[in-house]
Amino acid sequence: MAKDLFTVHLQPIGRRIQIRKDQTILDAAQLAGVEINSVCGGVGICESCRIRLSKGTLSELTLDEENSFSEDEIRQGYRLACQAYPLSDVIIDIPPESLSTPQRLQLESQQKAEEIDPIVKRYFIEIYPPSIEDLRSDLSRIRGALTPSVGSFEVDYSVLQKLPWHVRSCNWHVQPIFHQSKLIQLLPATPHSRILGLAVDIGTTKVAAYLVDLESGDTIAQAGSMNPQIAFGEDVISRISYLINHPEQRKEPAKNLLHQRIIEGLNKLIDKMLSDINDPTISYENIVDAVIVGNTAMHHLFAGIPVEQLGISPYVPAVSEPLYIPAKELGLSIAPSALIYLPPNIAGYVGADHVAMLLPTIYPYYSDSSKRQSNVMAIDIGTNTEISLLHHQKITSCSCASGPAFEGAHIQFGMRAAPGAIEKVQITSEKKVLYKTIADQDPVGISGSGILDAIAEMYFADLIDSKGMFLNNHPNMSIQGRNTEFILVPAEKSGHPQEIVLTRRDVNEIQLAKGAIRAGINILLSEAGLKPEDLEAFIIAGAFGTYIDVRSAMKIGMFPFIPLEKCHQVGNAAGAGARQMLLSKRYRQVASELAEQVNYIELSNHPKFPDEFSKSLFFPAKELAN
Amino acid sequence: MAKDLFTVHLQPIGRRIQIRKDQTILDAAQLAGVEINSVCGGVGICESCRIRLSKGTLSELTLDEENSFSEDEIRQGYRLACQAYPLSDVIIDIPPESLSTPQRLQLESQQKAEEIDPIVKRYFIEIYPPSIEDLRSDLSRIRGALTPSVGSFEVDYSVLQKLPWHVRSCNWHVQPIFHQSKLIQLLPATPHSRILGLAVDIGTTKVAAYLVDLESGDTIAQAGSMNPQIAFGEDVISRISYLINHPEQRKEPAKNLLHQRIIEGLNKLIDKMLSDINDPTISYENIVDAVIVGNTAMHHLFAGIPVEQLGISPYVPAVSEPLYIPAKELGLSIAPSALIYLPPNIAGYVGADHVAMLLPTIYPYYSDSSKRQSNVMAIDIGTNTEISLLHHQKITSCSCASGPAFEGAHIQFGMRAAPGAIEKVQITSEKKVLYKTIADQDPVGISGSGILDAIAEMYFADLIDSKGMFLNNHPNMSIQGRNTEFILVPAEKSGHPQEIVLTRRDVNEIQLAKGAIRAGINILLSEAGLKPEDLEAFIIAGAFGTYIDVRSAMKIGMFPFIPLEKCHQVGNAAGAGARQMLLSKRYRQVASELAEQVNYIELSNHPKFPDEFSKSLFFPAKELAN
Repeated sequence: MAKDLFTVHLQPIGRRIQIRKDQTILDAAQLAGVEINSVCGGVGICESCRIRLSKGTLSELTLDEENSFSEDEIRQGYRLACQAYPLSDVIIDIPPESLSTPQRLQLESQQKAEEIDPIVKRYFIEIYPPSIEDLRSDLSRIRGALTPSVGSFEVDYSVLQKLPWHVRSCNWHVQPIFHQSKLIQLLPATPHSRILGLAVDIGTTKVAAYLVDLESGDTIAQAGSMNPQIAFGEDVISRISYLINHPEQRKEPAKNLLHQRIIEGLNKLIDKMLSDINDPTISYENIVDAVIVGNTAMHHLFAGIPVEQLGISPYVPAVSEPLYIPAKELGLSIAPSALIYLPPNIAGYVGADHVAMLLPTIYPYYSDSSKRQSNVMAIDIGTNTEISLLHHQKITSCSCASGPAFEGAHIQFGMRAAPGAIEKVQITSEKKVLYKTIADQDPVGISGSGILDAIAEMYFADLIDSKGMFLNNHPNMSIQGRNTEFILVPAEKSGHPQEIVLTRRDVNEIQLAKGAIRAGINILLSEAGLKPEDLEAFIIAGAFGTYIDVRSAMKIGMFPFIPLEKCHQVGNAAGAGARQMLLSKRYRQVASELAEQVNYIELSNHPKFPDEFSKSLFFPAKELAN
Repeated sequence: MAKDLFTVHLQPIGRRIQIRKDQTILDAAQLAGVEINSVCGGVGICESCRIRLSKGTLSELTLDEENSFSEDEIRQGYRLACQAYPLSDVIIDIPPESLSTPQRLQLESQQKAEEIDPIVKRYFIEIYPPSIEDLRSDLSRIRGALTPSVGSFEVDYSVLQKLPWHVRSCNWHVQPIFHQSKLIQLLPATPHSRILGLAVDIGTTKVAAYLVDLESGDTIAQAGSMNPQIAFGEDVISRISYLINHPEQRKEPAKNLLHQRIIEGLNKLIDKMLSDINDPTISYENIVDAVIVGNTAMHHLFAGIPVEQLGISPYVPAVSEPLYIPAKELGLSIAPSALIYLPPNIAGYVGADHVAMLLPTIYPYYSDSSKRQSNVMAIDIGTNTEISLLHHQKITSCSCASGPAFEGAHIQFGMRAAPGAIEKVQITSEKKVLYKTIADQDPVGISGSGILDAIAEMYFADLIDSKGMFLNNHPNMSIQGRNTEFILVPAEKSGHPQEIVLTRRDVNEIQLAKGAIRAGINILLSEAGLKPEDLEAFIIAGAFGTYIDVRSAMKIGMFPFIPLEKCHQVGNAAGAGARQMLLSKRYRQVASELAEQVNYIELSNHPKFPDEFSKSLFFPAKELAN
């Protein structure tokens, strides 16, 4: 009897999933949470879901597949994931170019293998109740019971505010929790209780939060949201301007709405994660540590530190050193005496999030003596793009004002990566325009990665020239003086009454953004005397960087041409770094070390910047793509 | 030409004052703030304002004076202050028994001579603004400027919340203020600016607050109020009961009304003192240190620490060690990052206020090697009375539940020491009842010191016996079964339509209170193998202790008979000790040392207590008074 279910083992990610024989390998990947590119939506024409059969048997090649691959590729086992059904258990290799988020997943699995040595530690003690012969205070009793294991320690005074009823209500069986040598929390000494840490990456646009079991290392909940500060401005500068224009909010964090909103926003994420966990033994009192990362402005706004000076040259932070802030002082809904760790900032526009991002990206090369000669570049693309280059065991960093175009701002039909956003675009050799939307809904706009694809495809289809000028050689092209545009989606296929177009002005916005990034990359390389081919790894982090087609980014010259196998799209590396610092206190020292030794280059002031920037506005010669 | 003004030099206090020749020595004392007893209001009949002329010439003896003194006394220069006018500059000795508050004044003047070495310290620095060549953060700049003088230091993160605008608004001239090695405040580096410390003694009934210049040592403002917690109970136990009956207030200091009220109360006192100072350069931001003392319950309630366990045997504190609490966490209106110091508690009913009181009373004997053999007793009378005995360089302490009778509670016409309260009573040999009220208003009730006087005078005038039974040998006595009372003020002289009486029940209340105190004194003495005459000094502290007639207290047996010159009524010694700890960090170590080495005796549990207590309920043999 034929099997009904087959196991599909997806490599190199290491995920296994069972599917029915009427489900495709693309279905398998999607069920397993592995994001394979699929621009055409699984109908066999976009060729973006290329995979390779490593072991086992798949259904026969379809006609579409035969047209998609060379004979050599077919011999090697290449298939389109959307066309292939399993006929046995199979092992499937997913080449990097077919994965939306390959290393991100790897990063998360690597995370579990990391050393676990958190800065907080707990004990289980039983103390004797007071008697007329032993009139010591409650705290003296706890000290007495802990002395053999802990020695002398400080006590956060808030702990005292519940100490007497706590020790009595749990019948003198207590679980004291220490942040290094400071007593920060008391929990009942119940078995199986967990202590958790909160890791947060506050992006200008998005916030990602994780709850991590501080003993097993497991991420037991995660949640994301838009940054609620968006109501006050899309980018950092407009939020700073808001505060400059509202001086009544400057002097007290309690009155600073940007500060208040991000705290409220994080508290909602914490609530959501706790309710997802849905374990009556776990409350915010169990969250006894936190690591929060963000760019310098997000860092300051979170901590209630003024940011106005970040809007004025020479853009210096109020504070760059690492901070510990008691949760109660910020009103964050975790254990009140937990000490929130904010890693160091490097400069006004290279913040603690970049330091966190260096931990899972550059640091493995930096710390491995066998890789002493590695040249590695790591780039975190966002409204501001930070780039670091490791060379001769030294890190040089810069920040590029890439702007919010990749987030959809300043683009006529630009939008964030939400359902209905076009995220993949392909222009076939017959000049047919294919696209894929998020959640496969009717298209309503274009996401950043969709715009990159569209421009790369238009450039390679000779619809725009290397300067971004539109060329009149496609029926969808409409050139009317300054109002030049290319119709991506006609009105009748759009999710709203309008056609969805890409304008000359849109392309220009992207040229400015990608030009700034490329200028940063070039200056870092040239300062080190390196060429792109000298890079051993090119690591792309951040939500946007995770979803872009790296080949498109290279085709439009945002990145230099680098072999794809050297490119790693690692997802939210800042969040991963934050979790590393939660789970191992050693990484906090590493973060300080890295921040300390970074050589920061201020691009706005760099003599080569104007040249590099204007050169980078153009698109590169197409033959370089081969 | 005869002088119009004469200088009166009052000894041993060391005050000088100029008066006109038509003003009495009593006037001089009152103008100089020296409180001489004056029961009859200055009409020459009560003999309570006895003084001695040491140098110079006074007006002729009046008839009243001739009747008041023996020939021998007249030869020695004794006079009544209310009858004597200066005829030259004079030096006047005021015997201890004529002074209401002699040593309190001495204590305050001694205070100024104390060493000044506060725990907070300030610097004046100028820092360079950032430039494109120097992109260090604001904080790094401050660190750079301070490194030569301070070395490495911690920063309270709240300081960062104003750092950027602060350094810019004061044009980079900054006054950083440190609590040991922690940066707690930034002020503009203006000349003549002052930094202040707050000292507070939170009594169960009264609160006394002082603002002290931390560099000159001057007390520049003081204010007092009733403890607003009185609304929740007159004594500690009734306030604890209130919280036991309101469990919703237990778990969060924010909901604990007793905690909230005392914080609000202190903030009002701070406001009042700042407005008394009325100096635009001084605000709550200049108050950069605080020392708060109170009994263990007041200590816990101030800090928001639960007190319920203090109401249940064996009455242990939640915490006895010294605490530092950031002002912002309690909402006290001083510099937000100032660290409020709470000295250690000794036991559930011997708190940090007693430790503070030991500093100006017992510690001078304890620390002086020439006084190593001193036996000294210090007693702080209040709703709870704490007593310490220094013997062989060891301190033994106990607490007596003396109750609120001395504050006027449970006494039919009892009242606090407010205008209209009878505070002195004398029954002349003709059995005439004389009294003096506070502010010389019509009598409306009797203060604690008035009650002590009344009972002592009644006992010595044979109106009550040694058991407190009323004897029917005075026209004012009305014995009607259980409703036995003595009319102190007839209705027509009273400030209200009723006569003011002292009842058998009132006397009984005082017997219970004074019996508890005397039992404590006796047990401390007998544990040390001492007799009262072995004491070198008997120090009486606290507001009530300051105003009582010590002879009356001895006559009714509250205190043993001790020569008056060994008795020192030192006023608010706890407040004075708090100021010592503000002005010199060494005293904080001393406080911990003293608290550590105190041997605490729990009286409720002491085998001798029942006997000593019942013995002490009676009044002592009158011949002992000679």
